[in-house]
Amino acid sequence: MTEQTPSTEAPCSSVTTVAYRNGAFRTETRTVPAEVAVAVSIGGSTHAVMMATPADLEDMAAGLVLNEAIVAGIGEIEEIAIVETEAGIDCQIRLVEERARTYQTRRRQMTGPVGCGLCGVESLELAAPALPTIEATGAEPIAPQAICDAVAAMARQQDLSRLTRAVHAAAWHDASKGLVVTREDVGRHNALDKVAGHLARAGIDPRGGFLTITSRVSVELIQKAARMGCGLIAAVSAPTTLAISQAQAAGITLVAVVRGAEFEVFSHPGRIAGALAGLDRAANERTV
Amino acid sequence: MTEQTPSTEAPCSSVTTVAYRNGAFRTETRTVPAEVAVAVSIGGSTHAVMMATPADLEDMAAGLVLNEAIVAGIGEIEEIAIVETEAGIDCQIRLVEERARTYQTRRRQMTGPVGCGLCGVESLELAAPALPTIEATGAEPIAPQAICDAVAAMARQQDLSRLTRAVHAAAWHDASKGLVVTREDVGRHNALDKVAGHLARAGIDPRGGFLTITSRVSVELIQKAARMGCGLIAAVSAPTTLAISQAQAAGITLVAVVRGAEFEVFSHPGRIAGALAGLDRAANERTV
Repeated sequence: MTEQTPSTEAPCSSVTTVAYRNGAFRTETRTVPAEVAVAVSIGGSTHAVMMATPADLEDMAAGLVLNEAIVAGIGEIEEIAIVETEAGIDCQIRLVEERARTYQTRRRQMTGPVGCGLCGVESLELAAPALPTIEATGAEPIAPQAICDAVAAMARQQDLSRLTRAVHAAAWHDASKGLVVTREDVGRHNALDKVAGHLARAGIDPRGGFLTITSRVSVELIQKAARMGCGLIAAVSAPTTLAISQAQAAGITLVAVVRGAEFEVFSHPGRIAGALAGLDRAANERTV
Repeated sequence: MTEQTPSTEAPCSSVTTVAYRNGAFRTETRTVPAEVAVAVSIGGSTHAVMMATPADLEDMAAGLVLNEAIVAGIGEIEEIAIVETEAGIDCQIRLVEERARTYQTRRRQMTGPVGCGLCGVESLELAAPALPTIEATGAEPIAPQAICDAVAAMARQQDLSRLTRAVHAAAWHDASKGLVVTREDVGRHNALDKVAGHLARAGIDPRGGFLTITSRVSVELIQKAARMGCGLIAAVSAPTTLAISQAQAAGITLVAVVRGAEFEVFSHPGRIAGALAGLDRAANERTV
């Protein structure tokens, strides 16, 4: 895969505000995150357009096509060119010849959920993709403290968040070596795609570790974790009902509301050392 | 417009979690927000599919088609039927005959940003819609305290947030009478669409008041405020660069980082009493 020049857009800017404090107005400066329209195009045709923070866009483009299962592996991406225009940034992906052919065929057959004449009920059925199931690997369970430490380690790398207090972060942690990569974005989905793309481009298998994210857990984040093969995702904020049921179905350990040395496990506690034993004990105490 | 039976899905559920506290595990219960796939279909064809909180879906569907300028007014919507299926909820909109015809024509001509053979650069140009400009109305400026009070009033109505700590809210406040409507959703865009839909269905002109939201301000929220004709939007969290520049261009007063009795103004401070005078004084003090 050829590396291209990274985007020249700054990920944040300083702006002047009129602040109201103690009953009076004064001018102040504040650092705000950049948000630009970013297209991911494949073989010259637009695949997706999203609003994103203009940093690590090669990672984001690669992670998006991996997490949407457009490609089976990073080796099928021949080149990612980051092209800046007046209206935004175009991440132009060139696939290897064989995959480019199958993508074009698939594209012609694609009945996207929107705007293709499908009725609402048909579209709803397409909106829930079948997910791979993450099998228990027999790996060592993760110590509870390692989860709290991982969220703290991610926080120390959230440089853009420290400046702006208005971006999300996602990170991946090797089960034995700790934090490997943190990525930030105004969109929480983008932050997780950036992590996936970084790991793939660096040749690191996501199955050997776990994910942390700063945001709430909606179902799309569980879908991305499942595509990555990550058996555990830990979030600072809370999950939705659908995220919990999909994590349950996909065999993913969903940890959320991580605050200091505390957290809650919403599915498959077996990957966390002591969690099942603690549960059995609680059950026994109740039956006594 | 015919009213239909509201959705029977609960907006939140109680789940059992395995909580890690003080170094030990125990079972607890937590209330989490529901998230379901919701389609908005027009005349039998899907217009959009999103993940949303299943409450106030008639408001959301109406607000979406208003904020996307599919209809010029609520009178062009003849019926909204909320149909629950296995895969999610379909909000089936029927437009009045003349608008249904123009929608079908427009739909056939629509070159959506994604999947229609456009290249990335063309799609990026379509991604930034032209916005109406909100003119200064000559209305009384809003007192700074009214903005802080409005955010506090919205907080008192955030029932789902109090239970789950994982949903966003948007509200609209009449300039003289105060809080009129608060709507909550796992998606911040949906919350604002629900407010727009409620106002339209209740026959209330959004131009006579202002908006508050709990979330960060990304550009889509400014676009929705502009479509509603609301000259002021105040957010609990911070804005992005693009939200600021679009608010500037659309003539919208963007207030953010509202905390207790403090906030910051990012564009058009003239709608807030004393803000311009405070600025002039600050400028004079600097030149002395």
